[in-house]
Amino acid sequence: MMHAQSAAFLERHVGTRRADEVRRMLDVVGYDSAEALAAAAVPDDIKQDAPLILDPALSEAEVLTALRGLAARNTPRVQMIGQGYYDTVTPAVIRRNVLEDPGWYTAYTPYQPEISQGRLEALLNFQTAVEDLTGLEIANASLLDEATAVMEAVLLMRRANKDKRAVGGKTLLDADLFPQSIAIVLGRAHALGIEVEVADLTQGLPDGPLNGLVIQQPGASGRVADATDLIAAAKERGAMVTVAADLLALTLLKSPGEQGADVAVGSAQRFGVPLFYGGPHAAFIAVRKGLERQLPGRIVGVSTDDAGRPAYRLALQTREQHIRREKATSNICTAQALLAIVAAMYAVHHGPEGLRAIAERVHAQARALAGALDGGGLQVVHRSFFDTLTVRVPGRAATIVAAAEAQGINLRLVDADTVGISCDETTTPAIIATVAEAFGVPVPDEAESMEGEAMEGEAMEGAGEEDDPAGVGFGLDAAMRRTSTYLEHPVFHQHRSETQLMRYLRRLKDRDLALDRTMIPLGSCTMKLNAAVEMEAISWPEFAGIHPYAPDDQTEGWRALIADLERDLARITGYDEVSLQPNAGSQGELAGLLAIRGYHASRGEGERNVCLIPASAHGTNAASAVLAGMKVVVVANAADGTIDENDLAARIEQHRDRLAAIMITYPSTYGVYDANVREVCAAVHAAGGQVYLDGANLNALVGLAQPGRFGGDVSHLNLHKTFCIPHGGGGPGVGPIAVRSHLAPFLPADAAHWSGDVEQGLPVSASRFGSAGVLPISWAYVKLMGGEGLTQATTSALLTANYLAKRLDPYFPVLYTGEAGLVAHECILDLRELTARTKVTAEDVAKRLVDFGFHAPTLAFPVAGTLMVEPTESEDLGELDRFVDAMIAIRAEIDQVAAGDVTVADSPLRRAPHTADAVVSSDWDRPYSREQGAFPGRTSRQDKYFPPVGRIDQAAGDRHLVCTCPPVEAFQD
Amino acid sequence: MMHAQSAAFLERHVGTRRADEVRRMLDVVGYDSAEALAAAAVPDDIKQDAPLILDPALSEAEVLTALRGLAARNTPRVQMIGQGYYDTVTPAVIRRNVLEDPGWYTAYTPYQPEISQGRLEALLNFQTAVEDLTGLEIANASLLDEATAVMEAVLLMRRANKDKRAVGGKTLLDADLFPQSIAIVLGRAHALGIEVEVADLTQGLPDGPLNGLVIQQPGASGRVADATDLIAAAKERGAMVTVAADLLALTLLKSPGEQGADVAVGSAQRFGVPLFYGGPHAAFIAVRKGLERQLPGRIVGVSTDDAGRPAYRLALQTREQHIRREKATSNICTAQALLAIVAAMYAVHHGPEGLRAIAERVHAQARALAGALDGGGLQVVHRSFFDTLTVRVPGRAATIVAAAEAQGINLRLVDADTVGISCDETTTPAIIATVAEAFGVPVPDEAESMEGEAMEGEAMEGAGEEDDPAGVGFGLDAAMRRTSTYLEHPVFHQHRSETQLMRYLRRLKDRDLALDRTMIPLGSCTMKLNAAVEMEAISWPEFAGIHPYAPDDQTEGWRALIADLERDLARITGYDEVSLQPNAGSQGELAGLLAIRGYHASRGEGERNVCLIPASAHGTNAASAVLAGMKVVVVANAADGTIDENDLAARIEQHRDRLAAIMITYPSTYGVYDANVREVCAAVHAAGGQVYLDGANLNALVGLAQPGRFGGDVSHLNLHKTFCIPHGGGGPGVGPIAVRSHLAPFLPADAAHWSGDVEQGLPVSASRFGSAGVLPISWAYVKLMGGEGLTQATTSALLTANYLAKRLDPYFPVLYTGEAGLVAHECILDLRELTARTKVTAEDVAKRLVDFGFHAPTLAFPVAGTLMVEPTESEDLGELDRFVDAMIAIRAEIDQVAAGDVTVADSPLRRAPHTADAVVSSDWDRPYSREQGAFPGRTSRQDKYFPPVGRIDQAAGDRHLVCTCPPVEAFQD
Repeated sequence: MMHAQSAAFLERHVGTRRADEVRRMLDVVGYDSAEALAAAAVPDDIKQDAPLILDPALSEAEVLTALRGLAARNTPRVQMIGQGYYDTVTPAVIRRNVLEDPGWYTAYTPYQPEISQGRLEALLNFQTAVEDLTGLEIANASLLDEATAVMEAVLLMRRANKDKRAVGGKTLLDADLFPQSIAIVLGRAHALGIEVEVADLTQGLPDGPLNGLVIQQPGASGRVADATDLIAAAKERGAMVTVAADLLALTLLKSPGEQGADVAVGSAQRFGVPLFYGGPHAAFIAVRKGLERQLPGRIVGVSTDDAGRPAYRLALQTREQHIRREKATSNICTAQALLAIVAAMYAVHHGPEGLRAIAERVHAQARALAGALDGGGLQVVHRSFFDTLTVRVPGRAATIVAAAEAQGINLRLVDADTVGISCDETTTPAIIATVAEAFGVPVPDEAESMEGEAMEGEAMEGAGEEDDPAGVGFGLDAAMRRTSTYLEHPVFHQHRSETQLMRYLRRLKDRDLALDRTMIPLGSCTMKLNAAVEMEAISWPEFAGIHPYAPDDQTEGWRALIADLERDLARITGYDEVSLQPNAGSQGELAGLLAIRGYHASRGEGERNVCLIPASAHGTNAASAVLAGMKVVVVANAADGTIDENDLAARIEQHRDRLAAIMITYPSTYGVYDANVREVCAAVHAAGGQVYLDGANLNALVGLAQPGRFGGDVSHLNLHKTFCIPHGGGGPGVGPIAVRSHLAPFLPADAAHWSGDVEQGLPVSASRFGSAGVLPISWAYVKLMGGEGLTQATTSALLTANYLAKRLDPYFPVLYTGEAGLVAHECILDLRELTARTKVTAEDVAKRLVDFGFHAPTLAFPVAGTLMVEPTESEDLGELDRFVDAMIAIRAEIDQVAAGDVTVADSPLRRAPHTADAVVSSDWDRPYSREQGAFPGRTSRQDKYFPPVGRIDQAAGDRHLVCTCPPVEAFQD
Repeated sequence: MMHAQSAAFLERHVGTRRADEVRRMLDVVGYDSAEALAAAAVPDDIKQDAPLILDPALSEAEVLTALRGLAARNTPRVQMIGQGYYDTVTPAVIRRNVLEDPGWYTAYTPYQPEISQGRLEALLNFQTAVEDLTGLEIANASLLDEATAVMEAVLLMRRANKDKRAVGGKTLLDADLFPQSIAIVLGRAHALGIEVEVADLTQGLPDGPLNGLVIQQPGASGRVADATDLIAAAKERGAMVTVAADLLALTLLKSPGEQGADVAVGSAQRFGVPLFYGGPHAAFIAVRKGLERQLPGRIVGVSTDDAGRPAYRLALQTREQHIRREKATSNICTAQALLAIVAAMYAVHHGPEGLRAIAERVHAQARALAGALDGGGLQVVHRSFFDTLTVRVPGRAATIVAAAEAQGINLRLVDADTVGISCDETTTPAIIATVAEAFGVPVPDEAESMEGEAMEGEAMEGAGEEDDPAGVGFGLDAAMRRTSTYLEHPVFHQHRSETQLMRYLRRLKDRDLALDRTMIPLGSCTMKLNAAVEMEAISWPEFAGIHPYAPDDQTEGWRALIADLERDLARITGYDEVSLQPNAGSQGELAGLLAIRGYHASRGEGERNVCLIPASAHGTNAASAVLAGMKVVVVANAADGTIDENDLAARIEQHRDRLAAIMITYPSTYGVYDANVREVCAAVHAAGGQVYLDGANLNALVGLAQPGRFGGDVSHLNLHKTFCIPHGGGGPGVGPIAVRSHLAPFLPADAAHWSGDVEQGLPVSASRFGSAGVLPISWAYVKLMGGEGLTQATTSALLTANYLAKRLDPYFPVLYTGEAGLVAHECILDLRELTARTKVTAEDVAKRLVDFGFHAPTLAFPVAGTLMVEPTESEDLGELDRFVDAMIAIRAEIDQVAAGDVTVADSPLRRAPHTADAVVSSDWDRPYSREQGAFPGRTSRQDKYFPPVGRIDQAAGDRHLVCTCPPVEAFQD
């Protein structure tokens, strides 16, 4: 029995709880209760044998109290550890109107560009800022973190470098890369068999053929040196070159492009994104022209719509579902959209002169400190730096770090003799003085004069010209002083006041459809409620302000929360241990497969490298297998959508000695509980293989069946699906893996402290706990629901999906059902027959739904010519019926085409979606009425959503790739 | 010289800071700098002689750090003091999507109903909830606080009661009213000469003629008794009856209407509005049918638009500017819209069964405690109660209160022998057990069983039927158990899941125009930026969770913040002391005039009661004077808008011996710095009068001139204008008064601890610091700007206003300017000649601006037939020019009417605003194009705002007054 206050949250999370409405749905599906429906749908042999028991559910108020208690066990300090993580000021207008606004954070990835123009513009701003600052032509819309971005750059160079001199060449990493970047590359290169060397490049390039070189600017040590000559030397030997750079430093530094680099990567964290105990942060990657088709991840490009208006869309789409299986070169399919948008808006708000002023201030503080330390007789290792100093203090490092910590400041203990200090936007002269004291040197007079120097915004621009104004002998290497301009696009100049930015953010948000306006019935994406109470804690300074390398005694609350969430996820899935490190589902897959590899190797079966993957699988599965160094073997699906048992047997037989694993999704990507999953798992186990059970569809299992108990050895979960982390317009994601105990030794290692032992777990994300910053969301969800609540959410999700399937089947046949004639938590609507008959495509239906105010279902996955619909438990009967009515009305429009009343080309389906401009136009010449165009079915005339653009020409945008903010003139009406 | 980081906020607050743009504006107005413009505009004899010096400006990060420091000096405790203030759980979805959403909080009062349908619907929900729960037919859209609502009820009864038996009758107050309500009524009745008696009504009604009776349910003591007989007895003697009621208790109690009351008042605070250290909270007032035209404040009513759609608007409008001067019966012109909306949405979210369940849970806890105390041999004074107990503990009260406080619980120390305890939504059995321990009685077994009883939502509804299930001998008087239903309208049943409520809130928000989408150029309203950073702290529990009667050692941070703000406001205005108690401008006026009255009386000049008010004054001025017991004498304005000096001299001469004060607004309501203000003040002073300088237009003075130095004895300020508290869709407001030292003894007293001494200051608001909860906003603004920043804001405001005046004058003549040909911070555009010639009215222009996406300027105030425009410093040149372009385009449309090209009736001006429905309609038959209708001028076609309704028929709505949510069928398309 539940506590009354707690029951309340279940009522809030599940869309339909009123008895009469539940009854109506049950009547349609023909069951007496949602539990009975679930009992019929889930195969008996996988059902869990006891109810899910977790801590008793908490009320909203109780969960906030508990989170405040955890927060109080963290200690935000002045964070000067650096290494890719710097304190920054998130402008309140951005925090409130992006990070804390459901119009932004509940949006989905912008695959449907007509209803995504706002976030696409925001991401294009991000790309433009990255391109300008790196001096390279094409940037993508963000990557997961800087360390994995370095690895993506390594892979990009390996596949793009066709130079004969580079044949067989190794990848060379500057030893002054951040340690976590080196660890990620070494670990992943091991899996792929790529040769990597880490070298001190101040000694010049090592011998031997070189495929690619990665250097860091500023280096992990803080060193800033012009790499133009080094880069030229490497290129002369046929290598390609990547610079890992700091965006803020780039406002003052000669750009990677100007130094000759082919690729630049880095983190945009310090552009207003909180430390978040290590993530999520947006990483970036930019390339010189000619390499754009090698870019991993998502790229926003500019095309035009049906009226010739400029319109944004994802360019060169390799949607995750369509990743080219065995030939995959990257498994990246999530971005860090929400964080990239925060960073972009930080650049929009500050503009080039504001960013430069911030960078000058940061640099001035570092210079002041360097002067004081040097004046005190200490050895400041590098005389050219931006924000970070390395100081030699033989034997005294620990004492100094402790002294600073006692004053509330975290420094970096490099080794017993060396301390690192990184200044940032929040560093003040008082902080510098305290640090100087910790080193036992006199407080710098400069701290004060530096402040004076930094006083006037206008004086700022000139200040940088003088690199060593105080005559302290330190500063930026003059050769590295930037002279080129950046951020000249008007968007970086027009929103300087808060009123302007607030309105810009509102305008962009209003162009998009997110969960705060409509159901987003995307099959396989589980777009459920992201409750406000779950979101609250993430911006509290006690969570958001913690450096990932802060001492453990400052992070007790964080680690308790994480351990608790790991424990709950293990209980839910029936596994033994969980790692929250993977910061996307794709990273979870990779981590899981690496664990399997490690396990086989530890048993002397390192030759096991074949990964079986059903044809129906999500494309990412195959890509992850490739990146884990495995060979993908496809298993056929039977006509009913289940795995073809004969083909499976044959493949197992064929690869028995080298069989590493099978990757299956359960319920399947066809939205069905296959009855033979236990047999499939058993067959693979019998052949010595491991079972990877993809948890993308876990929303259909929680409380009903446990993958760790019915055959899985490892699963990744998508916390951004089942566990309420919002999609953020395309990230952050969190993809923890859960394993049975025999795989536990191979869970991901901490990249920052990795031993280098490739026999154990390899690190997969830059930061120990990945996207820690958003974990309070999932933690709160589990606590608010409790075991019984989570189970009820699952049965409710089954009920809504089956209700939709039953209601829609007469109009759009449901392609697959399980043995009881039921679907799981989603259903595939088959339009192929209709399309063949009428030429009306699934895409037409998707676009037409926009006119009804709906986001489209998943298009063409897992079966081309279909739509996959997943309503989740959070949608209410009213919204479900609104959707059904819209689909029925659309079917009637298709029937008109079929009857020859209207041609498909002239139909409201093909001409959809309808902009306000189109339906208001005096030149209306379509064979249907304006009202039918704009207000089909029951569409509200008072609360009508008009898309800002009409149907977008996807192909044209790829033919003429433009990935930079277009000039303002392009938008003139 | 400013600190660079601090300068940053000034850049954010002021719309236009780019040198080239400022230059363009200066060129138009013909000055070299904004400072030179200000120097020319402000008369020399009032200019302040030294720059405004305040604490150095802080950066956004610094101000948050400072606020966190203040917050840490407050101690949120379990608050069981009650007395009209109860802890409550604000649903996170409401906090995030209303209280923290600029779409809601930056909206203006819904005088322009076509762009206010969202908040009007929300307020209508509030009215409907109040009507249902009180059992009375008509409620208004909120009042300032419960105590002043009681006073409004007293005044209402006095003007409405025409019964002969009541002639000369006194007003009778139940002694069991909250002390603050009694204090407010006694103080204000003294000013008006109304006879009031406070009596213990358990002894029956006292003798003598009775005008009105006010009782409280539950009483301050917690007592709940059926008042049906008492009310009938009072009415038989010709009295009218008001019940001050608790909304949550009313879910269980027989309603005031059912008991025969004419009026009900109370606070909606515990419907999800934080304690806020005393305010702002929405009070309510409801009346029986027949009294609706006596209701003070704002009432939302239902009318229809030009297409016959139901449409909301303010009914029976007595807009503040149009209050009937000398005949005023109330000076109330602000509501607590934002808080009323929170309360309404709390009712929408919980619905009747949810509210009832909460009330039953609260009551169950109180019953459990009563049983334990009684069982422990203590005297629980009333056996019938809802949530509040009064306990007799002779001589031990202080010890018990201290013991509870030591355990983190605040109880009410009634007197040395008596303790009060109020349960609320957050009270748990553990808390009850701790309270019992503090009383030294055994922990109640019931606490556990009560929890059991409260466990199941479904069991809940029945639970109330059994009033004394545990047999403890306590509970609700059976006669007072409610049997009538409430909240049956679908709106209270359709938004139970968070997804549903989130979408409902978004839908309503999107119907409205607020500052997050457009300039709101409302003359006299100063709609400037409400920065996100200023808003952040108000929902922190350390500020929001403090009871107004918490011990001082728990409120150090609050009081330090308040004292600091008082000091800064005194420095800014040049006065000596400040009181932040008045929770609206009107209350500030009243407080200021009461101070003047008190001062005269203290000098033996109590006969001074004449208040001079210029004809141009805001209507509230006269109303406040009447309510302060003064006689209003109007002074004429000269043709140039200044005070007519001859008429002033004559009026002074005429009333010399009885002259109490003059009330003048400076700059005048005509938006001009009158040159003779010093002379006017001197003339009044010479005649023994005091000068009340209305601070409504202080945004034109800060840093340039100080009302306390150029002639004022007292001013009220509008923190919701000049000091950035958002308008909240019509409240909260804050109207502090600043006085010279001779008036300081007459500043408002604390109602809760008022001595009753009418020779000193009288309380004007229920709570000591009025709307304390929103004061961090103004505090942050002052700290972020510093003295120099505030001064630059003022000069920027002058620049934008004069830029608009100069640009618009050729099209719409500016009515008044000062001696230098300049306006102050706003300008009046005179349409009277155009109207006479074309019949196009100022209202037509206001409505047509909606089609351009603008909120209208102030209409018909202070001069009928005009528009008054105030851009504030926060608007940027782009938005100003967009407005100018729109006005020029409108002028061209007027010229077409003038030229006879189109009739006014058929013009886009009169047919404005244009809904999507109208311009999309196939039946378009207007003589202008759809495009001209929908997208006039440069209106964006991609980001177009369509109003949800067309022009509303105001008169029809008043003829057929409907103030309740209309049935759903009314909205069918």
